[in-house]
Amino acid sequence: MKKSIFYHAGCPVCISAEHEIISLIGAERIEIVHIGEEKKRISEAENAGVQSVPALLTPNGHVLHLNFGASIEAVKA
Amino acid sequence: MKKSIFYHAGCPVCISAEHEIISLIGAERIEIVHIGEEKKRISEAENAGVQSVPALLTPNGHVLHLNFGASIEAVKA
Repeated sequence: MKKSIFYHAGCPVCISAEHEIISLIGAERIEIVHIGEEKKRISEAENAGVQSVPALLTPNGHVLHLNFGASIEAVKA
Repeated sequence: MKKSIFYHAGCPVCISAEHEIISLIGAERIEIVHIGEEKKRISEAENAGVQSVPALLTPNGHVLHLNFGASIEAVKA
C-alpha cells in the first residue's frame, strides 16, 4: 500500500502532530520527512501543495495541514 | 477503543478532509459531528481546544486542525 508522507521541520507543533498521526495511522504507513534537514525535498513538498508544516500528504495526493508550526518559506530561510 | 471525533461544518474543505481522514483512519474509529447542525456541541468542541473546522480530536485529547474551513466564531454566527 502506498504510504502517506508526513512533512515536518522539527518544531514542537510538528513533533506533537507526528505523535498523534503515528498513533492514529501507524508508523508503518507513514514516511516521515524532516524538510529542515532534507532541504532537497522542500520542492517536492511544495509541488504536492504543502504550504506549512506539519503536513500530511495522503496516498491519494491530498494535503492535510495539521495545525501550524512553520511556513515553507520559514523553513527555506 | 476510544474514538476520535471529527468536527466539521459542512464546508468544502471540511468534506474533503473528512474523506481523507476516513480513508486513513477508518470510519468505525471516528465520530463525525456537524457543529453547524448540532450547535449544542460547539461548546464541547471549544472546550476540547477546537478553534476552527475541520478538526480532529484524538482519543488522547489532542486537537489536529486540518487545513482551514471556518472558524468556530463563524459557525456560531
